[in-house]
Amino acid sequence: MIPQAVVPVLPDFTFVACILFILLVPLAAAGIALLNTGLGRSRSAAHSMMASLAVFAIAAVVFFFCGFAFAGFAGAPGHILRIAGKDWGWLGAQPFFLHGIRYDGSAPSLVALFQMLCVGLAAMIPLGAGADRWRLGACCASTALLAGITYPIFAHWVWGGGWLAQLGANYGIGRGFVDAGGSGTIQVVGGLTALAVAWILGSRRGKYAADGMPAAIPGHNAVLVLFGCLLALFGWFGLNSAGAILFAGADPRRCVLIAINTTLCAAAATLATALVTRLRFGKPDASLCANGWVGGLVASSAAAPFLAPAAAVLIGVVAGILVALSVEWFELRFRVDDPGGAVSVHAVCGIWGLLALGICARMPDGPLNGASGNGSQWLAQVVGIATLFGFVLPLTYGLNALLNRFFPQRVAAEGERQGLDLHELGAGAYPEFLTHTDDFLNR
Amino acid sequence: MIPQAVVPVLPDFTFVACILFILLVPLAAAGIALLNTGLGRSRSAAHSMMASLAVFAIAAVVFFFCGFAFAGFAGAPGHILRIAGKDWGWLGAQPFFLHGIRYDGSAPSLVALFQMLCVGLAAMIPLGAGADRWRLGACCASTALLAGITYPIFAHWVWGGGWLAQLGANYGIGRGFVDAGGSGTIQVVGGLTALAVAWILGSRRGKYAADGMPAAIPGHNAVLVLFGCLLALFGWFGLNSAGAILFAGADPRRCVLIAINTTLCAAAATLATALVTRLRFGKPDASLCANGWVGGLVASSAAAPFLAPAAAVLIGVVAGILVALSVEWFELRFRVDDPGGAVSVHAVCGIWGLLALGICARMPDGPLNGASGNGSQWLAQVVGIATLFGFVLPLTYGLNALLNRFFPQRVAAEGERQGLDLHELGAGAYPEFLTHTDDFLNR
Amino acid sequence: MIPQAVVPVLPDFTFVACILFILLVPLAAAGIALLNTGLGRSRSAAHSMMASLAVFAIAAVVFFFCGFAFAGFAGAPGHILRIAGKDWGWLGAQPFFLHGIRYDGSAPSLVALFQMLCVGLAAMIPLGAGADRWRLGACCASTALLAGITYPIFAHWVWGGGWLAQLGANYGIGRGFVDAGGSGTIQVVGGLTALAVAWILGSRRGKYAADGMPAAIPGHNAVLVLFGCLLALFGWFGLNSAGAILFAGADPRRCVLIAINTTLCAAAATLATALVTRLRFGKPDASLCANGWVGGLVASSAAAPFLAPAAAVLIGVVAGILVALSVEWFELRFRVDDPGGAVSVHAVCGIWGLLALGICARMPDGPLNGASGNGSQWLAQVVGIATLFGFVLPLTYGLNALLNRFFPQRVAAEGERQGLDLHELGAGAYPEFLTHTDDFLNR
Repeated sequence: MIPQAVVPVLPDFTFVACILFILLVPLAAAGIALLNTGLGRSRSAAHSMMASLAVFAIAAVVFFFCGFAFAGFAGAPGHILRIAGKDWGWLGAQPFFLHGIRYDGSAPSLVALFQMLCVGLAAMIPLGAGADRWRLGACCASTALLAGITYPIFAHWVWGGGWLAQLGANYGIGRGFVDAGGSGTIQVVGGLTALAVAWILGSRRGKYAADGMPAAIPGHNAVLVLFGCLLALFGWFGLNSAGAILFAGADPRRCVLIAINTTLCAAAATLATALVTRLRFGKPDASLCANGWVGGLVASSAAAPFLAPAAAVLIGVVAGILVALSVEWFELRFRVDDPGGAVSVHAVCGIWGLLALGICARMPDGPLNGASGNGSQWLAQVVGIATLFGFVLPLTYGLNALLNRFFPQRVAAEGERQGLDLHELGAGAYPEFLTHTDDFLNR
Repeated sequence: MIPQAVVPVLPDFTFVACILFILLVPLAAAGIALLNTGLGRSRSAAHSMMASLAVFAIAAVVFFFCGFAFAGFAGAPGHILRIAGKDWGWLGAQPFFLHGIRYDGSAPSLVALFQMLCVGLAAMIPLGAGADRWRLGACCASTALLAGITYPIFAHWVWGGGWLAQLGANYGIGRGFVDAGGSGTIQVVGGLTALAVAWILGSRRGKYAADGMPAAIPGHNAVLVLFGCLLALFGWFGLNSAGAILFAGADPRRCVLIAINTTLCAAAATLATALVTRLRFGKPDASLCANGWVGGLVASSAAAPFLAPAAAVLIGVVAGILVALSVEWFELRFRVDDPGGAVSVHAVCGIWGLLALGICARMPDGPLNGASGNGSQWLAQVVGIATLFGFVLPLTYGLNALLNRFFPQRVAAEGERQGLDLHELGAGAYPEFLTHTDDFLNR
Repeated sequence: MIPQAVVPVLPDFTFVACILFILLVPLAAAGIALLNTGLGRSRSAAHSMMASLAVFAIAAVVFFFCGFAFAGFAGAPGHILRIAGKDWGWLGAQPFFLHGIRYDGSAPSLVALFQMLCVGLAAMIPLGAGADRWRLGACCASTALLAGITYPIFAHWVWGGGWLAQLGANYGIGRGFVDAGGSGTIQVVGGLTALAVAWILGSRRGKYAADGMPAAIPGHNAVLVLFGCLLALFGWFGLNSAGAILFAGADPRRCVLIAINTTLCAAAATLATALVTRLRFGKPDASLCANGWVGGLVASSAAAPFLAPAAAVLIGVVAGILVALSVEWFELRFRVDDPGGAVSVHAVCGIWGLLALGICARMPDGPLNGASGNGSQWLAQVVGIATLFGFVLPLTYGLNALLNRFFPQRVAAEGERQGLDLHELGAGAYPEFLTHTDDFLNR
């Protein structure tokens, strides 16, 4: 049972702001779906959107079934490991099926709704990396693993009062690992899953020539991609604000600062990407700039409530440069074929956002995660990032590799040639438009 | 005049939540517009969007002119019929032109705004059924009848304190007919109008072969369709929450539950449709899954504030199965040519949502519609559904048939061959793209 | 430093409503971006969206850097000119970089966020006029001038307690120039900049024949255009409401009226445009109707909180007629080639909105801009409009002409033939779709 004593009921004022911020989150997911679809091929466009809807649905149902039980919420009892005289939470212990939650303005009810939508957003991220070759059934199964296992475990550690959050109270390392809007919990978890999926699936047919040089396969609709960015900004306003209220104790009045920082960070990132691509290729690259915009949003999430606007601009500039460079690194050096740029945008910029909190943030005066320590916040962030690399990446890779063993994730070669729309859905996205079919079929 | 005594001024907290929920409703309408357009043909895509804008505009203006006067609001005086010693409200009696409404946080002002946007949403539903053959002028005239007569009458009975709402207080049948978010008032009224319009217009050229077998005419843009679903979810958050506050006395704190139920219902419905179409056709059908998603939203509206999340999942599963099967029933057995699936999605799932309230809902403790009775709520719902079939369907059919008499609703055969865009607007939606013109012209 | 005494902290209730209204504004910008892109050619579609993102980013960064410092806010100290014994504010004097703003629910923090998003919206307006021939770099430079100089100066005069706002308190002319939602500050400033840009750029290749007759160059995607309208409505709800709260002291409860008026004004305008184009050309013109819709939104902004709904309908009808006629005037008589109709929609309808406030508005009882005078409100509006023509238009023309001198704004002839996408971004928006390339290349 949920003990009454620790379940705070939010003030009316905070509650109304919070639920409305939360309701904006699906538009962030819609933005990412458009981005992924536009960056993919026209012959798998319906598949990409259909997969977005399906993984959002699977994520919501699985999180309702068991995900929330494992994620828990701060202040609730969870499974605890006693090490060296300290209690460390390692898994939530709520009832399944959202049982026992009270819908009377209590924080846990908002946390459940928020995370149900966030996990749907996280589940869309790998779709960008698996575009044009990931089977629909496998997307769904992989999402079930993400929403039922990977995400809830890490979310419990960070947002559910688990051991990463307790680093401050237990060992005096800053205020523990802080990630207000989910740069790590949502974005890096999704981005590392995208990396695992891209590794497991391998590259698209025709992506790498015999000499290892990657071919450019342009996205089929740049308008969708860039429109997706504007929707994502709107969704991120909600994401960053709701997260700050629920997980960093931010006052809703501070959400003005959060919105300013989110806007400036995305703006600065886009301009930085445009400059870098302009300098390197002679022309700004629209797809990369879109990725830069989202990378700026991703980097802003962790620390948005704690930044001066000038710091947000700086963080955005770095995020934009990181996107412009890392997309190429992954493609050329690591031979990761990631059509949507999901790894660069969500994993790389997410990690930068977490780190930036340790570097640039001015933490609030009151306690956070039960600790008020200053000074070594960067250390807590590094521990969190190390956990993402050392635990979450192996976990999500292992789960997806296991799944791949019993239920092959990649579509048959014939299906890839034909396009996922016809092969898996039996109908194309744009049946009346003429496309350069031959061109692409011959690759 | 509006008597002051009965016009409650909402608490600040509730007011702010409510107006913001209401403002989300146009995005539900935008989602439905994209869905209808994507499921139609490319040569009538501009016409479909233009008709969406036009009917939204007509609906708002007519509802402002007389619709609100007839719809009224609970607690206000209306036209009353005294039968067997009981007073039954049958029509609102507010002044025209929204005269006399006070914009001081009063519930009626919110009701007027909410319904003005809802009737625009209801008016878009028939566009899905009349796609590719419904004249623009006739859409507008038909909408004027819907927004000025059909919708306000039924809305008065349910939301305006009319006889369906009074069933509980007058005869002890549950709490009277309850429809918190408009499964009946908006969706079934729109869906039955769609059915009437489809009957009156007849099927598209080439839809049915000489032997009566329907041809599949795929929608021209699956990306629009599936993106419309994500927008609709966002709009439905507002629809279900605002309706629950205004018409079911729900506390804004309960809107967390409403959002969870709405999400789960849409998610479960999509997955159910995907499974059923997978089992029947070997592949999941993206268009039907999109319809399943919206069907789940529609079914969630009536009872969202009164459901346990597990019940919402169940209702969604049934809605998804109903969509998958009923689209075929209507097409094959009843020979209703409904390109957008409007009848299945809005009428069938709406009725299921109303019924589901009678079956699965745990009604609140306090009185609703002036009654606190439990137990026979299903009976009130059945009476409401019977009224929709026995009164609203004949009324909307009669009005549209009458209109058809004096102002033919179907476009000339020549216009259908040419495409509605060129014929009625003088320009195509996509003038620069090459389409399979010949193919379709020869049908 | 910002003196504490004059910085009001908004009540919680008002604050939450206000921030959420503000967050809707980017969707107005997204709607305008889609409108501009859909009304342009397919071969510059990616460029149009990319420019939208870029100018939004530039506007945010420049406004953060110096724009807000110059715009200031009412009650704060500014640069003052003493003429004839009266103090007239002519420029804000806040610190740069949003320094000194307190994020504790203070009105200035909301003003900073709101205007940062508004200036992004204003910066997108000229993109419609410069479509298919405006260089990306020049768009960005021009936006920096708009966001750093033109917009802040006029915004200070109107919203920052400058001399136009002081007309009432100083000379008893109504309540001073009133523009609650930015018909002038955002729309006319943007629209006049669009006019200046269209003049400086000249017309597109092939737009005018040797005999001076303009050719119709249809937009490439009517679905985007009309969908943009529905998004814009949603964004305008936020724009008009937040502006009314922050700059006209409106009570949030009045926002119900604002939303009703906004909806009715857009609806009436669309219907009026449809009727006029139907009467003139035999068929309603979908692109012009979309422009009519936005023109209605633009006209509603100035006076939305002060109008009876019937007046909003009237204002909308006039706006719709103005759009239908003025697009042709500009094209035929003044030979302004404005593919997106930006001048008609934003400048003409914006001026009508400002004027309509003087004619139809019922001003609130309390003081506004420190004055309570009635009667000569129209005079204050005329002074404001004269300032727009006499000062803002020359200023923005001069700045853009100067820019053009050192940094040519128009793309090279070769680039226009090729399409801006390929020329400036190196990739088309729709690489897989077949388009009527030859047709258009030969113009």
